Amino acid sequence: ERVPVGKRRAQHSVPQAEIAERLIAAARAGKRVVRLKGGDPFIFGRGGEEVQAVRAAGIALTIVPGISAALGCAASAEIPLTHRDHASALVLATGHGQDGTPFSNAGVPAPGHKTIAIYMGLAQAPRLTDALIAAGHATDTPVALIENGTRPDQKITTGRLADLPRLALHHTAGPTLLIVGETVRLSRYWGETDAPAETPSALAAE
Amino acid sequence: ERVPVGKRRAQHSVPQAEIAERLIAAARAGKRVVRLKGGDPFIFGRGGEEVQAVRAAGIALTIVPGISAALGCAASAEIPLTHRDHASALVLATGHGQDGTPFSNAGVPAPGHKTIAIYMGLAQAPRLTDALIAAGHATDTPVALIENGTRPDQKITTGRLADLPRLALHHTAGPTLLIVGETVRLSRYWGETDAPAETPSALAAE
Repeated sequence: ERVPVGKRRAQHSVPQAEIAERLIAAARAGKRVVRLKGGDPFIFGRGGEEVQAVRAAGIALTIVPGISAALGCAASAEIPLTHRDHASALVLATGHGQDGTPFSNAGVPAPGHKTIAIYMGLAQAPRLTDALIAAGHATDTPVALIENGTRPDQKITTGRLADLPRLALHHTAGPTLLIVGETVRLSRYWGETDAPAETPSALAAE
Repeated sequence: ERVPVGKRRAQHSVPQAEIAERLIAAARAGKRVVRLKGGDPFIFGRGGEEVQAVRAAGIALTIVPGISAALGCAASAEIPLTHRDHASALVLATGHGQDGTPFSNAGVPAPGHKTIAIYMGLAQAPRLTDALIAAGHATDTPVALIENGTRPDQKITTGRLADLPRLALHHTAGPTLLIVGETVRLSRYWGETDAPAETPSALAAE
């Protein structure tokens, strides 16, 4: 029995509380329940909330990790997320935080020797750009936009931080991860383009 | 044909430059080469450097993402890495950076609403703790130490940031990931313990 509870952008087909209720009800009915998610359940996947609810109901569980979007997109776009010469940390941030500000209440990452991957940031590209530049990130910091990453219809645009709001206009068809940092320059797809490169994923092609 | 080039802590059995040379030589000999790594090749895995070398030699490649230690350990220790109420960003940092300082030249993550996962940080626990507290992280911030994460001999210790150097003394047998942040409190293994909990991984048990 499959029960779709899929989400697309901010449109939750099934509210989060109801998802937890259904998981608990199915387990109490003696079923073996798999809650399947894209990416990793503990990275912007609300897995923590579901675990809390299921555990509070006294139901045993096992969490299986997954390939979060930043890892899949980086592999597919050939962008190292850390690199001895360019980035000694990786920040996974959200452009769609609970409080509505860019980077939410985690604050804007400080510039310097790190890669920043931003989930759900496309619609917030202008505000994210302003926040990064105000925090001291160079306007010519390389950026990449990876739409439908790892899929056959993957589309990648690269350019400079100051141009991110304009580059974002090329990406409207699917989920798009933003990557900001010097490591973007190491991508096979690096270049200052006005249009997205046609870059079907080698992962998907196999 | 299998060619082990394994690393353990800072002891490189085969130097990085030689690994790249071997990859290129094997490919030029007409072999189909798989470079197998633990975790994700692009997160503290030096995959970026190997890709640069192989690509410069004109050899086509595909990068396959993997479960980086933070994702595997978080699943196994039941610590959400992000959570709407507690952490709207995740920082993956290193305790063993190229320049030898805590957090290397990426700088110390600012406090507030984020989870910090530190790779290769065990030996640097006292310096990392001092740096975090000096940067404003509360001394009672929850921390977890996850040794041999996801394996049957996984061992988890939890406690407070100020006690991290002492807690680190319990972990000497295997690779240990450090997690710092309020989300640690949501773990099933959370508690202020003086000794590591016996917490064989459910992932490994299956």
